[in-house]
Amino acid sequence: MAATWVPDVSPDSPFSLANIPFGIISSPANPAPHVAIAIGSQVLDLKVLSSYPDFDDLFPALKNYPGIFSNSTLNEFAALGRPVHREVRSTIQNLLSAETSRPEILKDNLGLRQDAVLPQQKVKMHLPMSIGDYTDFYAGFHHAYYVGALFRGPQAALQPNYTHLPVGYHGRASSIVVSGTPIKRPFGQIITDPTAEPKHPTTAPSRRLDIELELGCFISIPNEMGSPIKVTNAEDHIFGYVLLNDWSARDIQTWEYVPLGPFNGKNFATTISPWIVLADALEPFRTKQIDNWTPLQGYLNEGKEENIFGIELQVDLETPQGDSTRICTTSSKYLMWSFPQMIAHHTLGGCPLRTGDLLGSGTISGPSQGERGSFLELSEGGRKDIMLQGMDVRRFLKDGDRITIQGVCGEPGQKVGFGECTGQILQATPQL
Amino acid sequence: MAATWVPDVSPDSPFSLANIPFGIISSPANPAPHVAIAIGSQVLDLKVLSSYPDFDDLFPALKNYPGIFSNSTLNEFAALGRPVHREVRSTIQNLLSAETSRPEILKDNLGLRQDAVLPQQKVKMHLPMSIGDYTDFYAGFHHAYYVGALFRGPQAALQPNYTHLPVGYHGRASSIVVSGTPIKRPFGQIITDPTAEPKHPTTAPSRRLDIELELGCFISIPNEMGSPIKVTNAEDHIFGYVLLNDWSARDIQTWEYVPLGPFNGKNFATTISPWIVLADALEPFRTKQIDNWTPLQGYLNEGKEENIFGIELQVDLETPQGDSTRICTTSSKYLMWSFPQMIAHHTLGGCPLRTGDLLGSGTISGPSQGERGSFLELSEGGRKDIMLQGMDVRRFLKDGDRITIQGVCGEPGQKVGFGECTGQILQATPQL
Repeated sequence: MAATWVPDVSPDSPFSLANIPFGIISSPANPAPHVAIAIGSQVLDLKVLSSYPDFDDLFPALKNYPGIFSNSTLNEFAALGRPVHREVRSTIQNLLSAETSRPEILKDNLGLRQDAVLPQQKVKMHLPMSIGDYTDFYAGFHHAYYVGALFRGPQAALQPNYTHLPVGYHGRASSIVVSGTPIKRPFGQIITDPTAEPKHPTTAPSRRLDIELELGCFISIPNEMGSPIKVTNAEDHIFGYVLLNDWSARDIQTWEYVPLGPFNGKNFATTISPWIVLADALEPFRTKQIDNWTPLQGYLNEGKEENIFGIELQVDLETPQGDSTRICTTSSKYLMWSFPQMIAHHTLGGCPLRTGDLLGSGTISGPSQGERGSFLELSEGGRKDIMLQGMDVRRFLKDGDRITIQGVCGEPGQKVGFGECTGQILQATPQL
Repeated sequence: MAATWVPDVSPDSPFSLANIPFGIISSPANPAPHVAIAIGSQVLDLKVLSSYPDFDDLFPALKNYPGIFSNSTLNEFAALGRPVHREVRSTIQNLLSAETSRPEILKDNLGLRQDAVLPQQKVKMHLPMSIGDYTDFYAGFHHAYYVGALFRGPQAALQPNYTHLPVGYHGRASSIVVSGTPIKRPFGQIITDPTAEPKHPTTAPSRRLDIELELGCFISIPNEMGSPIKVTNAEDHIFGYVLLNDWSARDIQTWEYVPLGPFNGKNFATTISPWIVLADALEPFRTKQIDNWTPLQGYLNEGKEENIFGIELQVDLETPQGDSTRICTTSSKYLMWSFPQMIAHHTLGGCPLRTGDLLGSGTISGPSQGERGSFLELSEGGRKDIMLQGMDVRRFLKDGDRITIQGVCGEPGQKVGFGECTGQILQATPQL
């Protein structure tokens, strides 16, 4: 991939010309949320670009959708399907390339450049999609194994269904927020003395507030109710990917989750990164998923090997004092189930996925100590201190802590990444 | 309540003048879905009524919402809040009363009557709300107890948390359909030999397709993320109620649900009745909930006794041969948790509820054999035949079976009910 003429694109930027992720911005000149892509430390405002008189010729696939980049979400664009996303991304790459075949449109058009190419710090990011339903899976093998071993011992670590199907549950769509949104510590029913019988809950702020490092996947083309998506067609239903932090209150979850699963322990907040990396941008980074020793049911068999992506992931914790510690470095290659498998399973019984629906991978952890994507694992079930810069320690999150997830693939100058998925913990509001 | 001048209002109609439930219809004259109310065997088309020149004077609260009854959902109307719903319902009751103070508007205006009062069989019903998130609770005490006893014996029937909090989980919004929509039997992973170890699943149509008789509650006024709704204010956030059938594939559910709860066993379809009975219409039918012997956490304490409604509920099964059997007669009084308690618990950690969100009560069953709201209970875990008319039997649903739920309160001529919540089972589509 050639270089870009856009200034200030560092070789370390996750937003190289090889990426072109889509997001929703507002700017001083255009305060209504609308569509842009990220390039280096800048954005290209596609609403402004679409005011260019030859826009229809430039993007013939969008001719019938004149306001598509003035929308406040990417749903209409996502629903156009992968061939259109591919063509639009490719045209934008050409426009931004140092060797563009159309320099008159943007590169040499200083007026339009001034209006359409804006520094990221001058724009505000918004939730990129209107999310109908959010489903969270449990496909991170080492996470499922390690957490299972903590509670049930290594012999019974994995539940019997784990290697047969991608276990998942329905999450809460209304509390999904864009990176940067502060996260208020939730109140909930918790058991302060786990040895007492009968159990005696109290209503209090969670004392075991945790993160879950995940990859999120947005649906483009919907399926009709009653019509499953074949695993071999599932890629056509994927718009793109984000980083996802599924904030979790472990003490609330422990008390509430039998027998119907997590509820208030999860539904207070989920943070996603603002830029959606298109499925095509991650294609060069395919890798093998975690080996599954169980013969697959036919509907889960993709008939090929490189079904997931090898994205380098990291989690940083910044204390209220400003000391930052990298608490986790891992990779999205530690998934045992691919997103096509999750989609095929999700729709097997006929469940309709809609444009903008979000699937979470489940917590991603690697096999070793520094690769664990939750405090529950890092602190070995809350029994061990995690050492931080500034002579501080944590087992779970404190008020004022800031968590930042990043994820990136590729070589310097051609990196494909997500930017930050970040949130700071606010103290609980005194109740009622 | 006085009688209505509308013809063909049987004393047994659930849609007496005391009700005035809201729904979304389309009609030959107005094929785009829009708002109506039900009265007897007729509807009053509110889009047509709003063409009346004095509409603004008639409904002063709606003056700033001129297109509100032309909307394809009730969300905008719901968001106006309970005082507006009360005023609008009361004005409609006056218009339709035999002793109306405004006979010139509708009663004696034969032209408008002809256009606005339509037989129900001439209109098509649509999903009444755009549903952001759907949450299903487990508040039916006898259901939770009986199902728990089936699996764990009577001593351990209720989980330790059951009497401390309204247990619930996130459901699937995309597969909620309006009454009358056919339900395709889902494929899924099922264990055909439960005694085999290790477990060996196969992919097949569910053999244990079931119903769940529930009451559904729609949210009107949203709460901000991070701001819980007090239990004593929760009524102000309720728009109204529907009947709900949470179709369930027990064999799929049994294999998948550990540890994160039901997923494909539930997400293939949920049916709701088309007419939303406003909260005010049910006020006269308040009753005490099931006694809870556990001291309540403060945030769940309503400080009053009559927190739920005594709605008579019944479930009919019609076989493909056309034989109909009433398989369940029970009451919504068998809930241990009220909807205000569910709302207070749901938002305790800050989870935002949005206009149009749907809460399910969980399966409603009474204490005796004929009062059980699921086949799982009626057939004692699939071990006993349920006797039907026509010398037929069931343990779970067969293809071609039609299930119809009805619910009603009140005396003849003043009944407040829901009409039918019905769906017929279609055979599974051969897979892939």
